[in-house]
Amino acid sequence: MSAYPLNPIEFCALRWSLGLDEALAAQLLKVSIETLKQWEDGSQPITELAQKQLLDIDDIIEMQVLNTCDGIEAMFKKEPKRRLAFVVYPSQAIYTQYNPEFLSSLPLTELYTTAAWRIKKECKLVLEVEIALVPLDVDSYKAFREQAGLGESRESRAKWAASQLS
Amino acid sequence: MSAYPLNPIEFCALRWSLGLDEALAAQLLKVSIETLKQWEDGSQPITELAQKQLLDIDDIIEMQVLNTCDGIEAMFKKEPKRRLAFVVYPSQAIYTQYNPEFLSSLPLTELYTTAAWRIKKECKLVLEVEIALVPLDVDSYKAFREQAGLGESRESRAKWAASQLS
Repeated sequence: MSAYPLNPIEFCALRWSLGLDEALAAQLLKVSIETLKQWEDGSQPITELAQKQLLDIDDIIEMQVLNTCDGIEAMFKKEPKRRLAFVVYPSQAIYTQYNPEFLSSLPLTELYTTAAWRIKKECKLVLEVEIALVPLDVDSYKAFREQAGLGESRESRAKWAASQLS
Repeated sequence: MSAYPLNPIEFCALRWSLGLDEALAAQLLKVSIETLKQWEDGSQPITELAQKQLLDIDDIIEMQVLNTCDGIEAMFKKEPKRRLAFVVYPSQAIYTQYNPEFLSSLPLTELYTTAAWRIKKECKLVLEVEIALVPLDVDSYKAFREQAGLGESRESRAKWAASQLS
């Protein structure tokens, strides 16, 4: 593989496929939007670091898709369902507060949503399971927890999301 | 399935995964950017037609990925290679002029590039083949054809793209 595996159009296609506009990609890669534009129009070579960062994130997402679909398949052996809810986060602030364990691998909420979308697609195709992506509504979630006497946890969020399906 | 299978965040994630910004998606779906924003912020229900259009395009792309990877695998049985070039189109005008057979199924050059990107990813993963996406450079392509005495055809474009690899 060459030092620069991705040419500008491939880099741009990868960025899109991750759900990142120019501003978000520039923020993620810690460069100016101007630099990102120059990379994508071919007037500046794209740094290896930037390519590696986006390719690594794509790999992390693909791994998450595989693991989650495997997990759902295993779960279904015990308790078959054909409809599931998957919590996503409508803003960076809510993502940072409620789902911090993903911040190091998928720093932006848009990346987490991209992973969730791919999981939804894969589960439908492979397992014939419908997954709804449910954006966390903090007020509704807090009211639900209070009523059910639940603490804040991934499991509580999943229960709240499931309650949103019907 | 409900009348509206995609909620706003899913619709938005699908749009992103196809490589469409708001302006391109609005153009494709023949609505205003304002309407698209209202769909995605949940203030207006997304029409079934719009959902179907994006989901159909995603299906078309997935089918193209499968067929192309199958074709490449079959080709490799006769003539093994580990590096291939795949022509993409840097503007809508060039796409419309040189690749009109895809205009009805993938009307925008960005959609064709999305398909090409997914083909690149899949071929690398499944076949261990490196595909380079080569944007058609009309001047270089014309000079190449003149020198080689070739007419305009998909095959000529593929030959030109291959000549750009080394």
